[in-house]
Amino acid sequence: RYGLAEEEHQVGVVTGLAWTSVGGDLLHIEGLKLPGKGRMKTTGKLGDVMKESIDAASSYVRSISPQIGVKPTVFDKIDIHVHVPDGATPKDGPSAGLAMVTSIVSVLTGIPVRKDIAMTGEVSLRGNAMPIGGLKEKLLAALRGGIKTVLIPQDNEKDLADIPDNVKDGLEIIAVKHVSEVLKLALIEEPEAIEWDEAAEEAAAAALKKEEGAGATAH
Amino acid sequence: RYGLAEEEHQVGVVTGLAWTSVGGDLLHIEGLKLPGKGRMKTTGKLGDVMKESIDAASSYVRSISPQIGVKPTVFDKIDIHVHVPDGATPKDGPSAGLAMVTSIVSVLTGIPVRKDIAMTGEVSLRGNAMPIGGLKEKLLAALRGGIKTVLIPQDNEKDLADIPDNVKDGLEIIAVKHVSEVLKLALIEEPEAIEWDEAAEEAAAAALKKEEGAGATAH
Amino acid sequence: RYGLAEEEHQVGVVTGLAWTSVGGDLLHIEGLKLPGKGRMKTTGKLGDVMKESIDAASSYVRSISPQIGVKPTVFDKIDIHVHVPDGATPKDGPSAGLAMVTSIVSVLTGIPVRKDIAMTGEVSLRGNAMPIGGLKEKLLAALRGGIKTVLIPQDNEKDLADIPDNVKDGLEIIAVKHVSEVLKLALIEEPEAIEWDEAAEEAAAAALKKEEGAGATAH
Amino acid sequence: RYGLAEEEHQVGVVTGLAWTSVGGDLLHIEGLKLPGKGRMKTTGKLGDVMKESIDAASSYVRSISPQIGVKPTVFDKIDIHVHVPDGATPKDGPSAGLAMVTSIVSVLTGIPVRKDIAMTGEVSLRGNAMPIGGLKEKLLAALRGGIKTVLIPQDNEKDLADIPDNVKDGLEIIAVKHVSEVLKLALIEEPEAIEWDEAAEEAAAAALKKEEGAGATAH
Amino acid sequence: RYGLAEEEHQVGVVTGLAWTSVGGDLLHIEGLKLPGKGRMKTTGKLGDVMKESIDAASSYVRSISPQIGVKPTVFDKIDIHVHVPDGATPKDGPSAGLAMVTSIVSVLTGIPVRKDIAMTGEVSLRGNAMPIGGLKEKLLAALRGGIKTVLIPQDNEKDLADIPDNVKDGLEIIAVKHVSEVLKLALIEEPEAIEWDEAAEEAAAAALKKEEGAGATAH
Amino acid sequence: RYGLAEEEHQVGVVTGLAWTSVGGDLLHIEGLKLPGKGRMKTTGKLGDVMKESIDAASSYVRSISPQIGVKPTVFDKIDIHVHVPDGATPKDGPSAGLAMVTSIVSVLTGIPVRKDIAMTGEVSLRGNAMPIGGLKEKLLAALRGGIKTVLIPQDNEKDLADIPDNVKDGLEIIAVKHVSEVLKLALIEEPEAIEWDEAAEEAAAAALKKEEGAGATAH
Ligand SMILES: [Ca+2]
Ligand SMILES: [Ca+2]
Ligand SMILES: [Ca+2]
Ligand SMILES: [Ca+2]
Ligand SMILES: [Ca+2]
Ligand SMILES: [Ca+2]
Ligand SMILES: [Ca+2]
Ligand SMILES: [Ca+2]
Ligand SMILES: [Ca+2]
Ligand SMILES: [Ca+2]
Ligand SMILES: [Ca+2]
Ligand SMILES: [Ca+2]
Repeated sequence: RYGLAEEEHQVGVVTGLAWTSVGGDLLHIEGLKLPGKGRMKTTGKLGDVMKESIDAASSYVRSISPQIGVKPTVFDKIDIHVHVPDGATPKDGPSAGLAMVTSIVSVLTGIPVRKDIAMTGEVSLRGNAMPIGGLKEKLLAALRGGIKTVLIPQDNEKDLADIPDNVKDGLEIIAVKHVSEVLKLALIEEPEAIEWDEAAEEAAAAALKKEEGAGATAH
Repeated sequence: RYGLAEEEHQVGVVTGLAWTSVGGDLLHIEGLKLPGKGRMKTTGKLGDVMKESIDAASSYVRSISPQIGVKPTVFDKIDIHVHVPDGATPKDGPSAGLAMVTSIVSVLTGIPVRKDIAMTGEVSLRGNAMPIGGLKEKLLAALRGGIKTVLIPQDNEKDLADIPDNVKDGLEIIAVKHVSEVLKLALIEEPEAIEWDEAAEEAAAAALKKEEGAGATAH
Repeated sequence: RYGLAEEEHQVGVVTGLAWTSVGGDLLHIEGLKLPGKGRMKTTGKLGDVMKESIDAASSYVRSISPQIGVKPTVFDKIDIHVHVPDGATPKDGPSAGLAMVTSIVSVLTGIPVRKDIAMTGEVSLRGNAMPIGGLKEKLLAALRGGIKTVLIPQDNEKDLADIPDNVKDGLEIIAVKHVSEVLKLALIEEPEAIEWDEAAEEAAAAALKKEEGAGATAH
Repeated sequence: RYGLAEEEHQVGVVTGLAWTSVGGDLLHIEGLKLPGKGRMKTTGKLGDVMKESIDAASSYVRSISPQIGVKPTVFDKIDIHVHVPDGATPKDGPSAGLAMVTSIVSVLTGIPVRKDIAMTGEVSLRGNAMPIGGLKEKLLAALRGGIKTVLIPQDNEKDLADIPDNVKDGLEIIAVKHVSEVLKLALIEEPEAIEWDEAAEEAAAAALKKEEGAGATAH
Repeated sequence: RYGLAEEEHQVGVVTGLAWTSVGGDLLHIEGLKLPGKGRMKTTGKLGDVMKESIDAASSYVRSISPQIGVKPTVFDKIDIHVHVPDGATPKDGPSAGLAMVTSIVSVLTGIPVRKDIAMTGEVSLRGNAMPIGGLKEKLLAALRGGIKTVLIPQDNEKDLADIPDNVKDGLEIIAVKHVSEVLKLALIEEPEAIEWDEAAEEAAAAALKKEEGAGATAH
Repeated sequence: RYGLAEEEHQVGVVTGLAWTSVGGDLLHIEGLKLPGKGRMKTTGKLGDVMKESIDAASSYVRSISPQIGVKPTVFDKIDIHVHVPDGATPKDGPSAGLAMVTSIVSVLTGIPVRKDIAMTGEVSLRGNAMPIGGLKEKLLAALRGGIKTVLIPQDNEKDLADIPDNVKDGLEIIAVKHVSEVLKLALIEEPEAIEWDEAAEEAAAAALKKEEGAGATAH
């Protein structure tokens, strides 16, 4: 089933686009949330640059967590596992950054990702979509795999001139500048923000302490 | 005794199938549960890809633990050790993923694994069975080793056309799409699910705290 | 958008200047503050020397934290993530030290960095600006990228003799001896110092203990 | 004294058999129990495969600890150090597995190991004795070193046909299928099992908590 | 400013002397004390031998801490960062040991180091000054850099015969046997010893416990 | 001062004997005890085999600690640093094992080591003295360095036949079988044993808990 669009909207499952010496391919990114201690686990023979892009994606998501309705304190109680099958094929590069952000947000909010959308784009620590290489090969792989919509960085829009018309006709290609646009397009519903300021944070911390204290001295 | 089917149904012991430059072979996977702190230990000269497949198997099992009757909190109190003898032979690849999941589920539930079944298939973080290579060599090894039933990924079903008839006659070959089918076929009885939602989780945590508190201040 | 000045004043975002075998380039340094435990995370395919320069920058900032209005105790409750896109390009060298200090101070104080300023210079553990190489290529890249003001180490002022006039005319070039000058020029407002002596420190520690104690025994 | 049988029955000291490019040799395995935190330390220039065989031996022993009269909770309070002199000679391979199990069991139970016995055999995580190479060279080394009895895996019994008669006459060679047979033959007395079920475990944990609690609030 | 004597007496800043294939040079060692947990951080592209010399210097200083007026318990509450600019030049060797000790003592006591003194010499774990290589090149660099006084190990005194007279005339060269002499010469005032025996230690520990206890149960 | 006997009896300072491609040499081993958490730190460009020999020495000493008058609980409160100058010369091999044991025992007991004694010999985990290479070169270095007495393993006694008479006349050479003999000969007085059984251990643990509890709730 590699190289084909997903069959259902699923939580944490995002389709990225890879570009290798033998052409483009779909990248089936899987995120999972586990009870834990704030660790990030990655598997799938990922190179250092792809692992760093997951780190950056994770820090970005953490920095906007109230905007997606997730209390920052949640991060200390879970681990997130990102896996990219197939496990025997080496993968690297930063261009799955937007997809990593989308997977992590989906996992944290429980909101599924649209099944027939794919995306490519590096992500900065501020959530900006940054340009990638191999656009043509990636779009061909998306078309071949039954993808309907592809999100690309706005800085790559100029490269569309070189893409064959049949590819551009077969796909809805949307240029994005920022993760916020990606989330609106890729998640089946929009996350709702919560209030979270330093006061809220301290109240949460105090409540936690009280609870622990109560447990610890319940006579 | 390498290369032969197990003599008894055993907890944590699963027969995988390896494919190397010198042909196929049985892979005797051994799982063990120990009192611990949620660590995963692996031995048997395993390569990084096989170790990652064990990590993915472990996260998958953890994510479905209530469905197999295991409280998620159990994972913090045990270590799991997966060993693949013989210890001097290097082993690698993701294709033992389904077998790893089966070993870990057997270890956690205490339900033995059928002795005359073998399996091959990568596992995704969502429990999907994913295609593998070397099907012919693996089936030959299974036949040679006295295996009766072999589970293969559905995506490999098309490769059965190239398998000699005597092999297909000598083995029951079952194509599976998902770990859930594997567990039904490979365990001698089916795990029973428990209720586990966030409320249950919080109640468990509270009880734990109370218990610790009571211990800590028992006047 | 690589190689161009930032479009807005932003917190934690500083423009450094890189010098590689193919010429000069802008380095878009991104800092982020996260709830945490005093860890420093770095991404962007950074070499060991650049990572060490971030370590030195971080220790320097920590040593002057009361002068920038930041309680030293803050450092135990946050992690700082410094990322330098693009993630696939290796970066190394100590010459982004002043920029790293500026990013970390901006992140800690919440004061944005001027968007049309760039800087180059190693930083010592005492905050001194130390000389760098490739001044000409760096200034050319700054000019090309729409930068208005460039901060350089005073020890490099002598190298300005070799810089073409059009570059010197197109940029305001300011030589600095110490981080304190950099912060005055690069932040949109100056951080205000707080009182912090050992007595303050002990009072803070005592208050913390009291608070924790109160939480832990709140009957 | 290398290459000679031990002079006394000693706790934790087991004679293994090595097979190298220059022939067979005795391997003097030394185990030691120290107050600690459940760590395993290994020294003696051991290769990764031998270290993994010690890991597997340790997990196996831990899994059977009530059968050898050792409370599982003991493991959290001790470290075990396994050393194989001489420290300058590299050693590797899984074939000392049975000897490692025997050393660890002797150390934990305090029961000495017979001085004139040697053993060779890989151990599985279930305690099975698994076949090894170099049987002839190992038996020659045993004879040369004054060993009286040698334990070998049953799967190697077929190789005895190739062993010279004088060697077979000079040694009592016993084929074993499982660690349980090894322990009966190698320890000077048999370990006595204790009762240990989950109830016992929980009672122990509760007692521990009470004790700690009592200490922590002793008014 | 590399290669020149410091302009002021500064805390933690010590001038060492390096000897490389291209001659001698000044080594500007910077030490900094930060709130922490007893960690030692080193930066400046230091080789393993120089890092070990910092470890040895640190242990030595810790072992004499009451003699320099520093309570041993201080070490658990601080981190020490030693940086040697410039960050892009690899540095190695044990000969900066005396300088490392001096920097750490200055940092811990807050007593500045004389600005026009430089020193070279390995340090043993007992504080002995041990011989170094490249004395001639190092002295030339010191002279060139405006240094007035150079401390060298007594075991190198015999090498002074080969040093040109103009160098010996331009520098005050003092041979030392032990760190205690170095500290007397290099710090602008002498550290004052405190009383510290096991009784003091236990009293401190008890006081700490009481304080923590008081905090933890302050009703 | 390398290559010469020590000038005084010192705590933790032991003279070992090295054998390299350029002949024998004295090895000045320095041990130091620091407040800590049971860690072992080693410096001096030591190879893995020498580091392992220090690990083995340390475990051995820990296993006999009551016999040398040291409570086993002491080990959790101290770190031990073993340094072997000069720091730029690589050192390796197991033959300093007896010297490492002697240094650690001296450090723990505070009993100085005789200054004019040197020793060579690997140590097993049971304290046995095991044979070493390069005896002739080592004895020559000892003689040259002003050493009076050299301890060698009994298994090397046979090699004395090849040693020139002037060397044997100039040194008192004592063959030893076990660490216990080494300690009697090398320390200026013998350590006195303390009583230490499991009951003592539990009493100590209980006292510790009480003390901590008292501190933690001192109203
Ligand atoms: Ca593919
Ligand atoms: Ca990619
Ligand atoms: Ca096999
Ligand atoms: Ca495989
Ligand atoms: Ca660029
Ligand atoms: Ca750039
Ligand atoms: Ca740079
Ligand atoms: Ca041998
Ligand atoms: Ca072996
Ligand atoms: Ca220089
Ligand atoms: Ca040096
Ligand atoms: Ca020497």
